[in-house]
Amino acid sequence: MTEARAPQLPTVDDVATRAGVSRQTVSNVLNSPEIVRPETRERVQAAIDVLGYRPHASARRLRTRQSSTIGVRLDPVTGNGVSGSVFDRFLHALVEHADARGMRVTLFTARDDEDELQHYMRLRDGADIDGVVLTGTRYDDPRTAGLAAEGIPFVAFGRPWGAEPLDDPARLWVDVDGRAGVQAATEHLVGRGLRRIGWLGWPAGSGTGDDRRRGWEAAMTAAFGHGAAELRALTTEAEDRVPEARIAIERLLAAGTDLEALVCASDSLGLGAMMAVREAGLPHFPVIGFDNTPVAKAVGLSSVDQRLDEVARATLALLMGEQGTRVLPHGGADRHPRLITPQLIVRRSSHLAPVEEEAGGTTSGDHINGKETQE
Amino acid sequence: MTEARAPQLPTVDDVATRAGVSRQTVSNVLNSPEIVRPETRERVQAAIDVLGYRPHASARRLRTRQSSTIGVRLDPVTGNGVSGSVFDRFLHALVEHADARGMRVTLFTARDDEDELQHYMRLRDGADIDGVVLTGTRYDDPRTAGLAAEGIPFVAFGRPWGAEPLDDPARLWVDVDGRAGVQAATEHLVGRGLRRIGWLGWPAGSGTGDDRRRGWEAAMTAAFGHGAAELRALTTEAEDRVPEARIAIERLLAAGTDLEALVCASDSLGLGAMMAVREAGLPHFPVIGFDNTPVAKAVGLSSVDQRLDEVARATLALLMGEQGTRVLPHGGADRHPRLITPQLIVRRSSHLAPVEEEAGGTTSGDHINGKETQE
Repeated sequence: MTEARAPQLPTVDDVATRAGVSRQTVSNVLNSPEIVRPETRERVQAAIDVLGYRPHASARRLRTRQSSTIGVRLDPVTGNGVSGSVFDRFLHALVEHADARGMRVTLFTARDDEDELQHYMRLRDGADIDGVVLTGTRYDDPRTAGLAAEGIPFVAFGRPWGAEPLDDPARLWVDVDGRAGVQAATEHLVGRGLRRIGWLGWPAGSGTGDDRRRGWEAAMTAAFGHGAAELRALTTEAEDRVPEARIAIERLLAAGTDLEALVCASDSLGLGAMMAVREAGLPHFPVIGFDNTPVAKAVGLSSVDQRLDEVARATLALLMGEQGTRVLPHGGADRHPRLITPQLIVRRSSHLAPVEEEAGGTTSGDHINGKETQE
Repeated sequence: MTEARAPQLPTVDDVATRAGVSRQTVSNVLNSPEIVRPETRERVQAAIDVLGYRPHASARRLRTRQSSTIGVRLDPVTGNGVSGSVFDRFLHALVEHADARGMRVTLFTARDDEDELQHYMRLRDGADIDGVVLTGTRYDDPRTAGLAAEGIPFVAFGRPWGAEPLDDPARLWVDVDGRAGVQAATEHLVGRGLRRIGWLGWPAGSGTGDDRRRGWEAAMTAAFGHGAAELRALTTEAEDRVPEARIAIERLLAAGTDLEALVCASDSLGLGAMMAVREAGLPHFPVIGFDNTPVAKAVGLSSVDQRLDEVARATLALLMGEQGTRVLPHGGADRHPRLITPQLIVRRSSHLAPVEEEAGGTTSGDHINGKETQE
């Protein structure tokens, strides 16, 4: 059995002894080299190099109160496995962009909003984080007010629905323009000559869901002059789960609907709708989802891509400045919320005629509004 | 515009001034209270309470060289969106179990194995991590040897395939017994009276894939005495992507196969196979996947669950002891790799007769080897 031990790291004292100087001189070389005579500086640097001494990150944090770390609460795993991956994909993009700026991401869990706030305060007090990225924002989210009151820099992924004004510079956010994305998806179907384009959405009352529906409404009203009653007649609602959506569309088809296509509030709804129309023997009934989840890609479901990489980039730009390597204190700079325009990805599920599929990758049939994707 | 500033935190000096004692006495109260006279201790404690002073986490880390943090490299996002979620679900479980032990998880990205090792060394040198959880282990993984040589405590999720012996206590791992899981899935179909049970696997040469296949071989040989030639005749291979699997099974069905069911090496393969048999008008041709991904749950695909929560629990038990709150140095304790037995989740896709589906949740049809699941 190998008895592996952590090697003893060289200390400031080791460097001082080897260079024949005081601890303070070593510290000066590290922190204020301009006040040290050049030949002393060189001797100390030589000792640092020979011993492989590295200034202690915790000591540096203690001096500077900078941790180079961003805190993120891990989203509770939801029952919805299809759209639940949005957080995980955002997290991947965030860690990659943070890494490019020399920042790390620390994860923790919390029971509720209050517990989450307590976590942030402890992490801030311990100089364990410089700032926070919030996710899962809701109507009347108490976390944004709490963080603002504590002076902890943060940016939210998601609009603080209901917390007007939405452009308060003390509550910065990045969000995806769901309305624009759904409008583009609907216009895509209108452009193919379809008229009876239905909306499959969540029950009303969700900021995100209502916003997405408005994109479908706008496109349908612009194209056909539909009013509220006509829009209502084209609407189906289901909870955000595949079987619910499938059963809702099965019922619609069994009742002899004249719908020609469906635009859906999520990929969960889109996948359920796609299963229902396929099993009803309608392989060319167009269905478009939202979120461009890995599942949509895997099964060939057209979908609206949130551009999470751009969301992560913009989140860090608000937190740290466009090119910065440090979290900025809030309130100083001229910073505004950012609304990212999503992108329609056209796949097999929204084609009106059969498409030959090739093996060799799931992206071969993907197009962004008519252009080949570069995913 | 609100000019929010971080409030100035109270320092040891503030506490000392308020209590009328020296800095050293405050430090003694915090670190060696037994050497301080009770009335002084109470006065200092009162000042700490009034001022809301909290000992600085970075200072504590500097003293103790403990960061209460585990380092994890974020898996590069793979093209495969279905099984790619295994890492994310493991990460969720790991953060939750770590949190219960007072530990945080810090994420970073790396270009390659060498870069990953450099990251661990920098994080260790900076007292930023106490230990490491490795994922994505492969044949001849250089990271395990590198971490062992550096004396950085680590546990791998995944066997160090090819690095014999597998029970080297300096290279601890937790893995899922894929072979046992696939064997249980195959036996489940055998128990339903099926004989022509095919294997849909990855091309040979993957430690994980070959191990899973051996479970199918064992069950088929035990039930029917099949030799290598018969097993080969029942085997189909495809890269781990939905369209490849779908096309492979479409071809098999078009050629007039006598297969009655399929056991698959992953949910990506299982989903492709399920789409192929359904569209061929075979709604009751059983298909079983592996990984129990959210997608399998969403579409009703029977699958083998890796029990990632148990994997995360066991990983921390090896890294920190069964109940510990600190990462243990390697090599000392009597610790062995752990092989977790996965669990077959039976859903609609492996039923031989139609099943009435209920709305209200995707789990309503799920069973674990005949028992209702408690997911």
